[in-house]
Amino acid sequence: MFTTPQEAEQAFYQALRQADLALMMRVWADDEDIVCIHPGGVRVAGHVAVHDAWQQIFNNGPVVINPVQPLIMSSVMSSVHVLIEQITVKMAQGPKTANCYATNVFHKGRSGWKMVMHHASHAPQDVDILGLEDRPDTLH
Amino acid sequence: MFTTPQEAEQAFYQALRQADLALMMRVWADDEDIVCIHPGGVRVAGHVAVHDAWQQIFNNGPVVINPVQPLIMSSVMSSVHVLIEQITVKMAQGPKTANCYATNVFHKGRSGWKMVMHHASHAPQDVDILGLEDRPDTLH
Repeated sequence: MFTTPQEAEQAFYQALRQADLALMMRVWADDEDIVCIHPGGVRVAGHVAVHDAWQQIFNNGPVVINPVQPLIMSSVMSSVHVLIEQITVKMAQGPKTANCYATNVFHKGRSGWKMVMHHASHAPQDVDILGLEDRPDTLH
Repeated sequence: MFTTPQEAEQAFYQALRQADLALMMRVWADDEDIVCIHPGGVRVAGHVAVHDAWQQIFNNGPVVINPVQPLIMSSVMSSVHVLIEQITVKMAQGPKTANCYATNVFHKGRSGWKMVMHHASHAPQDVDILGLEDRPDTLH
């Protein structure tokens, strides 16, 4: 049981790094309304479809992924996180890191904080997005 | 003032179709936490940066856009909508329609329902994503 959205999000990225499908599905709310969009992929909705999409990804093994620079908007029972995912992929020429933007939404229910939505998409590769001062608290 | 997230979302797409920057900014919450990601673009955060990003888009005139197949997750003071945006662009060879996935998040505050997050990204162009039965209520 996750008592904060941050805990749930940590478990989400741990599940990715360990290709741990059981942990991944404990992060998600157990209902038909959940939605997941992987980078370049189609929208999948509902517990079974989301489970199957992660299983397909985890069939390729653990994902080397590092979430950075989160922007967080919190409401009473809901928390919205928009962050940069640094994903490292093994290529013939050596490891290559690509950046994605991810929006993660968590809702608070009877069983604590659970993910209800994950939308990830490729960030522009020709821009140093980690160097952008795109967080209002970094502007002055 | 928008009394439901649906009203706010309708105004959002009306603002796009009319290139109406004032209406667009009435849809967004007036605070520093808002975040916007346009398809293929960089993350922008805060009222000023979001305003400037829309101004740049509206400099090219109205956007022919049709939101379809929404999936909606509601919480007490928050509503998350994941939908398909059909965007028609004028090309030399004639109009071309491309599909994007968009996640729109609305929060309820003292001034009604306001958008706090918009994340749009290109959907796969080689898949008939409108024909996918990706809504659990269409499965049987």
